[in-house]
Amino acid sequence: MKRSKLRYGMVGGDLNAFIGDVHRKGAAMNENVELVAGCFSRREEANQATGLHYGLDPERIYADFETMAAAEGARADGIDWVSICTPNNTHYQAAKAFLENDINVYCEKPLTFTAEEAMELKKLAEEKGLLFGLNYSHSGNVMVHEARALVRDGVIGEIINVNGEYFQEYLVDDIGNTDKEMLQLSSWRKDPAISGGSNCVGDIGSHIEHTVSYITGMELKRVCAMLDNYGQPLDLNANILVEFENGSHGVFCSSQVCVGHLNGLVVRIFGTKGAIEWVQETPNVLKLTLKGQPTQILNRGMGYIHPEVAAMERLPFGHPEGLYEAFANMYKAFTAAVLKKVNGEMLTEADLDFPNIEDGIRGVKFIAACLKSDREGSVWTEV
Amino acid sequence: MKRSKLRYGMVGGDLNAFIGDVHRKGAAMNENVELVAGCFSRREEANQATGLHYGLDPERIYADFETMAAAEGARADGIDWVSICTPNNTHYQAAKAFLENDINVYCEKPLTFTAEEAMELKKLAEEKGLLFGLNYSHSGNVMVHEARALVRDGVIGEIINVNGEYFQEYLVDDIGNTDKEMLQLSSWRKDPAISGGSNCVGDIGSHIEHTVSYITGMELKRVCAMLDNYGQPLDLNANILVEFENGSHGVFCSSQVCVGHLNGLVVRIFGTKGAIEWVQETPNVLKLTLKGQPTQILNRGMGYIHPEVAAMERLPFGHPEGLYEAFANMYKAFTAAVLKKVNGEMLTEADLDFPNIEDGIRGVKFIAACLKSDREGSVWTEV
Amino acid sequence: MKRSKLRYGMVGGDLNAFIGDVHRKGAAMNENVELVAGCFSRREEANQATGLHYGLDPERIYADFETMAAAEGARADGIDWVSICTPNNTHYQAAKAFLENDINVYCEKPLTFTAEEAMELKKLAEEKGLLFGLNYSHSGNVMVHEARALVRDGVIGEIINVNGEYFQEYLVDDIGNTDKEMLQLSSWRKDPAISGGSNCVGDIGSHIEHTVSYITGMELKRVCAMLDNYGQPLDLNANILVEFENGSHGVFCSSQVCVGHLNGLVVRIFGTKGAIEWVQETPNVLKLTLKGQPTQILNRGMGYIHPEVAAMERLPFGHPEGLYEAFANMYKAFTAAVLKKVNGEMLTEADLDFPNIEDGIRGVKFIAACLKSDREGSVWTEV
Amino acid sequence: MKRSKLRYGMVGGDLNAFIGDVHRKGAAMNENVELVAGCFSRREEANQATGLHYGLDPERIYADFETMAAAEGARADGIDWVSICTPNNTHYQAAKAFLENDINVYCEKPLTFTAEEAMELKKLAEEKGLLFGLNYSHSGNVMVHEARALVRDGVIGEIINVNGEYFQEYLVDDIGNTDKEMLQLSSWRKDPAISGGSNCVGDIGSHIEHTVSYITGMELKRVCAMLDNYGQPLDLNANILVEFENGSHGVFCSSQVCVGHLNGLVVRIFGTKGAIEWVQETPNVLKLTLKGQPTQILNRGMGYIHPEVAAMERLPFGHPEGLYEAFANMYKAFTAAVLKKVNGEMLTEADLDFPNIEDGIRGVKFIAACLKSDREGSVWTEV
Repeated sequence: MKRSKLRYGMVGGDLNAFIGDVHRKGAAMNENVELVAGCFSRREEANQATGLHYGLDPERIYADFETMAAAEGARADGIDWVSICTPNNTHYQAAKAFLENDINVYCEKPLTFTAEEAMELKKLAEEKGLLFGLNYSHSGNVMVHEARALVRDGVIGEIINVNGEYFQEYLVDDIGNTDKEMLQLSSWRKDPAISGGSNCVGDIGSHIEHTVSYITGMELKRVCAMLDNYGQPLDLNANILVEFENGSHGVFCSSQVCVGHLNGLVVRIFGTKGAIEWVQETPNVLKLTLKGQPTQILNRGMGYIHPEVAAMERLPFGHPEGLYEAFANMYKAFTAAVLKKVNGEMLTEADLDFPNIEDGIRGVKFIAACLKSDREGSVWTEV
Repeated sequence: MKRSKLRYGMVGGDLNAFIGDVHRKGAAMNENVELVAGCFSRREEANQATGLHYGLDPERIYADFETMAAAEGARADGIDWVSICTPNNTHYQAAKAFLENDINVYCEKPLTFTAEEAMELKKLAEEKGLLFGLNYSHSGNVMVHEARALVRDGVIGEIINVNGEYFQEYLVDDIGNTDKEMLQLSSWRKDPAISGGSNCVGDIGSHIEHTVSYITGMELKRVCAMLDNYGQPLDLNANILVEFENGSHGVFCSSQVCVGHLNGLVVRIFGTKGAIEWVQETPNVLKLTLKGQPTQILNRGMGYIHPEVAAMERLPFGHPEGLYEAFANMYKAFTAAVLKKVNGEMLTEADLDFPNIEDGIRGVKFIAACLKSDREGSVWTEV
Repeated sequence: MKRSKLRYGMVGGDLNAFIGDVHRKGAAMNENVELVAGCFSRREEANQATGLHYGLDPERIYADFETMAAAEGARADGIDWVSICTPNNTHYQAAKAFLENDINVYCEKPLTFTAEEAMELKKLAEEKGLLFGLNYSHSGNVMVHEARALVRDGVIGEIINVNGEYFQEYLVDDIGNTDKEMLQLSSWRKDPAISGGSNCVGDIGSHIEHTVSYITGMELKRVCAMLDNYGQPLDLNANILVEFENGSHGVFCSSQVCVGHLNGLVVRIFGTKGAIEWVQETPNVLKLTLKGQPTQILNRGMGYIHPEVAAMERLPFGHPEGLYEAFANMYKAFTAAVLKKVNGEMLTEADLDFPNIEDGIRGVKFIAACLKSDREGSVWTEV
Repeated sequence: MKRSKLRYGMVGGDLNAFIGDVHRKGAAMNENVELVAGCFSRREEANQATGLHYGLDPERIYADFETMAAAEGARADGIDWVSICTPNNTHYQAAKAFLENDINVYCEKPLTFTAEEAMELKKLAEEKGLLFGLNYSHSGNVMVHEARALVRDGVIGEIINVNGEYFQEYLVDDIGNTDKEMLQLSSWRKDPAISGGSNCVGDIGSHIEHTVSYITGMELKRVCAMLDNYGQPLDLNANILVEFENGSHGVFCSSQVCVGHLNGLVVRIFGTKGAIEWVQETPNVLKLTLKGQPTQILNRGMGYIHPEVAAMERLPFGHPEGLYEAFANMYKAFTAAVLKKVNGEMLTEADLDFPNIEDGIRGVKFIAACLKSDREGSVWTEV
C-alpha cells in the first residue's frame, strides 16, 4: 500500500530556536509528515526537552548528527528525510552524513562555506539518487510563484534591469560597538568560524540572489561588491552591482543597519514590456505594470492568478498568508517529491519544482564572489 | 500529573470546508491539543473521510452532534472541548448539546439566531461552570491586542468617533441575479433558514462590531441601519449609523459588493488625544497618531509593543503573521483556560481574556437590531 | 478685435487670507485674467494694502461691495467677472449686487444660507444671462474629471453604493473647550451668524456631496444625519446616511476632530462592474478596479487618460499638481466661458462644464437637510 | 526707494516648452518679478509669439542671447537676472554672456558640459560679484528642506548609507529601436552634441546627486558606474555604487526604462540613529524613523515642522503643493537675494541658501565621473 505520510528528523532547531519552530510548523501544515527523530541541540538538556516535547521515542533523540544519520539509515522505519536547520558551519557535514546514509535532505541556506563542498554534496546526492531541498523560504510565497509565471509567460518581456534589496535595522547599534557582549548579532552569526565569511550577504543578501534567480531564471555572471563591517568581524551592509549572464544589470543592496526597515526584501524586475515588484512584508500582493499602463495590484486568491500557482493557495483572497505558509509551501513541494520517491513513482520535472542543490551552489558562489570582490577593492568578480 | 494536552472534537469542518481547516491548523499551532472526535459533515462520506484523514478512532466519528455530545460526555477519555464550525443555524443546538454533556465549547459566530437562545446558552454554561469561546477570529491578531492596550492606557484619550468598514467584492455579480444556481453566495449563506436573518451584517458586519468593542470596551446603544438585498433574500450591503452607550458616534459599513476590496476590515478609532487604525489585510501593522503629531506605523515584533501583547507574537519583526496565527492566538487563550480548568487550577480574569459568550450575545443583538432598524424604515433601534 | 484677457475683481481675500491668495494664483495660472478691482476686506487698511500690492488703481479699491458692483457695472472698462471669497454670510448679497450690475460671478461655497436665496440668485443670473461659477475646488483636479469620464463611459457599471469622507484633525482641541479665545476654529467660522447653521458639514461635508455628484451625476434624495457639536455652537463632526434619487445608498462622514487626518477627502464610488477611489491628498492618482480584476493605479499624465481630461493637464506624468492647479482648472473653464461671452460667441454645453449655481443650490439643500435631520433626532429628511 | 520687484529675462522656454512654462509660473508665484525680455527660441516665430504673449516690448524680444545680454546689460532698465532654460549645450555660453554683462544668472542643470567650463563661470561670477542659481528644482520642495533640517539637527545620527533612485519608464520603447524618428527621447536629448555625454545620468541621475548632497551636506568621493545605452548614443539606465568623502557608501540608480515608475525620485538616508525617506511623487510627506521606533509620516503644514522650513509653506496641511511650488521656492530664495543685492543690502549666508554654482560644479563632476567610470569598464573613478 502506498504511504501517505513521511517520517522525518531534524538537526538543530531546539525549542528556543526561532527558525526550527517555523520549520516544524511549516512542515506540519501539509499534514503529510511526522517528526520521529532529532538531534536538536548540542546542549543535551535542550535536545532532550525538544525531543520529548514532540513525543519522540527517547532512543531517537540523538546526541550528534553522525549517530543519528547512521542509526536512522539503518532502521527499517528510519526517517525518509531530514531537515537541517543548524548554524551554517555544520550544513556541509550534516548533509553529507545523511546523504551517505541514503536519507533525503532539506537544508537551510547558505548550503556550505565553499562551492567545492557544495559541488561535492551535489555529486553525492546524484550518486545516491536522493532529493536535496534548499530552504530559500521567501520563494515559498504564492506571489513569488505568480511573479515567476508572469515572467515565463513573457508578460514583462526581456528583462533588462533588476533592483533587489533586503533591509533590516536590528544591528544598527552594532556599528562601532566594541563591547562584544552587547552586540545584537547572535553569537553564532558574529563568529566567522560558525557563520562563514559573510554575515549580511550570507544571511539576507543571498535571499535577494535567490528570489531574483527564482523569478527570472537568470544567473549572475559577475558582481562588484562593497561591504561594510563597521568595526565588526563580518559585514553588516552591502551595496552590490550585478551583471547577469544575459547581459542585464542591476543592484543588490542588503543591510542590517538600515533604520526604518524590519525584514524588507523587495525585488523589482524590469523588462522591455513591463515590470513586477514584490515585497516580503506584504507578501499577498504583487505589483505588475505593463508599459504605458496603470500599475496593477495583484492579490493572491483571485481568479486571475495562474491556475498552477493558485493550487498553492491555502486561504481565500484577502485572508493573509504569512511566513509559516511560505515554509509550508516549500515543504509541500519537497515532501510531495519524497513521497513519490518512497512510493516508487516516477518523478517528473514538475515534481522537482522546489529550490534545490543547484540553487544552493549558486548561492554559495554568489556569497564567495561578493567577499572576494570586496576584499580586492570592490572590483568586478566572476560568480 | 497535570495534563499538558487537551482532547478536542469538531462539529462541521469537513476536508472541503475552508474554515474548518483554519480552525484545525490554528489550534494545532499551539501544540497543546489533539483532535480525537468529530462530526464533520452531515454527508457521511465526507464525515468519514475527514475523520480518517486525521487518524480518528472510527467509533469517534459521529453521524450527528447529539450522539457525539452524549458519547463523548460519557467517556472517561472524552473530549475536553468542542469546536463548532457549522453553518449558523446549528450553533445553538450543537452548543447546547455539548454544554449539557459538560463539554467546554468554542463556537463560530454568529452565536445564535436570537438573543434569547444566546442568553439561554450563557445561563447553561454558567450553571455548568463551562468555558465558552467565540471565534471572532480577527481579534486574534496581535496588533488588535496592541490597539486595545493603547486605548486602555488612555493614549488616544476619550473615544469620540468610530469608523468601521468591512468590504468585499465577491458577491457583486449576485446583484439582481435571478438565476439561483449562478449565485456566488454559498448555498447555505443565501438560505435564511440556515444563515439566519442576515447575510452581510451577520457574516462580516458582526466582525466590525466585535473588533470595535474588543478594542474600545464600548458597547452599542442603538443603530440606524440601511441594508441592501439587491433582489436576494438576504442583505449584501449595509450602511449603519451607530451610537455607543457612552454617547460617541460613528458608522459601520459592511458590504460584499464593493469592488476593489477583498477582505477589507478596517477599524478607525478616534479619540480626544489620538487615533488608531487597523487594517485586516495588513495585520502586522497598526497606525497610531497623537494629535498634532506625525502618524506612526507600529509593527508587530518591535520593542515598543506592550509586553503582554508581545507575548502573543510567534514570529520576529517583519516576518508576516496571517490568518492562521490569528486563529492560533484565539485558541491559545481559550485552550490555556481549559487546560487550567481540567487541571483544577484557579482561573483568573487574565485567563479569561478571549472572546466569550458575552461577545456572542452582543453580536446577536447587534445583528437583530440592524435587521429590525432596516425593516422599519432605517429608523433608530436599540441594540 | 476679440479680447484674449478678462478684467476681474475680488470681494474678500486680503493679503492675510489663505484662500484669497489661492484664488488669485489659481486664476493667474491661466494667464488670461487681470485683477483690476477689489474690496478685499472690511478693514480699510488691509483692503488698501492688498489692492496696492496688486497695483490696482486706487479708485478701484472699494470700501464695500455694493459700491464696487455699481461702479464697476457703470465703467466702460469695468470688470468682466468677480470672485467672491468672503465668509459665508455675505455670499448672497455680494453675488446679488454683482449680478444686478451685469457682472458675471464666481463664488465660494456654500452659495447661500438658504435654498430660497440660492434660487433667487439663479433666477437673477438667468434673467441677466450671466455666468455663475461655484468654487467646489476639489472638482478642479484632473483625476476627478477622469473619474467622471470613467463613470460616464459605464466602466464601473451602475452605481450601487457610495462612501465619502472628509476628515481633518485640527479642531480636536475645541471639543468641550469653554474658553472661546482658545478655540482653533476661526472666529468667523464659529459664529453661526457668519458661518451659517453648519460648520463641519458646510465647510467640508459639502465637498463630499459635490465631488460625488460631480463624478456620478447622481443627486441626493434624502439624508439621515447625526452631527456632533461637542459643546460648541456648530457641528465639528458628522456621520450621515445618504440615499440618492436612483435608489443607491451610502455614507458621508465629515469631521474636523479625526486625529491622523489632515485634509482627507476620500471618495469611493462602487458600481456593478467596478469601483473608483480618489483621495485629495494624493490627487494625481486614481484607483480603478474592475470586478474580479487587479486594482489599477491610474496616473495623471499618462496616455490612457481620456483626451478631453488630458487637455486639462499642466505637467507631465509624475510631476505633482496640487491645490493651485485645481483652482486654476476651475478658473480656466469659467473664464473661457466668460471670454466667449464677452466676445459674443455662442456657448455650447461643453463650455459650461464647471460647477455652477445648480451645484450651489444642491449644496445648500444638502447642508439644510443635514441640519434639519439632526435637529429632529437624526431622522430621514428629504434634500 | 527700495525696489520690491525685479525685472527678468528668459533664454529658452518658448510657449511649447514644458519647463519654460514651469519656470515662469514658478517665478510668478512669488509676485516679485516681471518678465520683460527674452530670447525664447531659435525659431523666430516661436520666439516672437512667446514674447508677445507675455506682453513684452518687441525690441526686447531678441533673436540671440548674445545680443540680449549686451542690450539688456546696457539698458538703464535692463533685466536684473536671467533664467536660462535652454538645452544643455548652450548653458555655458549663455551664462557667460549674461555674467559678462553684469546680469545675475539662474540656470538649468546640468550647468555645463565640463568641469572646466563650470569653474570658469564660477570665477567670472565671483569677479563680477553676481549671483548664480542652479535649478535643482526638487530641492525646492518643503519636505526636502525639512529632511535637511533633521539631518543637521543630528536626529538620524551619523550617515552611514544612502540609497537614491530616480526611475522613469517613458523611454522603454527606445531600447534597441533603430528607427531614429520613432524614438521617445526628445531630439535634443538624444543628440550628444546638444545634450552632452550623458542622457539619463545627466537629466535625472544628477537630481539624485543633488538631493542627497543638499540634504546631507556630504560630497561624493568616487563612483563605480555601469551605464546602459541599449543601442542608443546615450545612456538610458545607470546603476552606480557611490562612496562619499566621509567614507559612507550607497547606490544611485537612475533609469528611463523602468516600467511602473513615472518620475520616481526616491532618496533614503540611513544614519546611526535614524533614517529619512523622501519621494518626489508624494512630496508633501517625509518618512522619519528613529531606531527601534515606529516610522513616522511627517506632513508639510504641521506644527512640528522646523519654523525656518515652515516659513516656505504656501498652503496649509493636507492641501498638496506640487512642482510649481518647488520651482517657486527655488525662485523665492534666489530672487530675494537678488532683490537685496539690487537694493544694496548686505547678503548673509542665510540669504544664499539656494542651489548655486558650487552645486552645479559638483553635478558636472558627478556626471563626468560616471561617464569615465563606465567607459573604462565600470571601475572606481574619483569625482
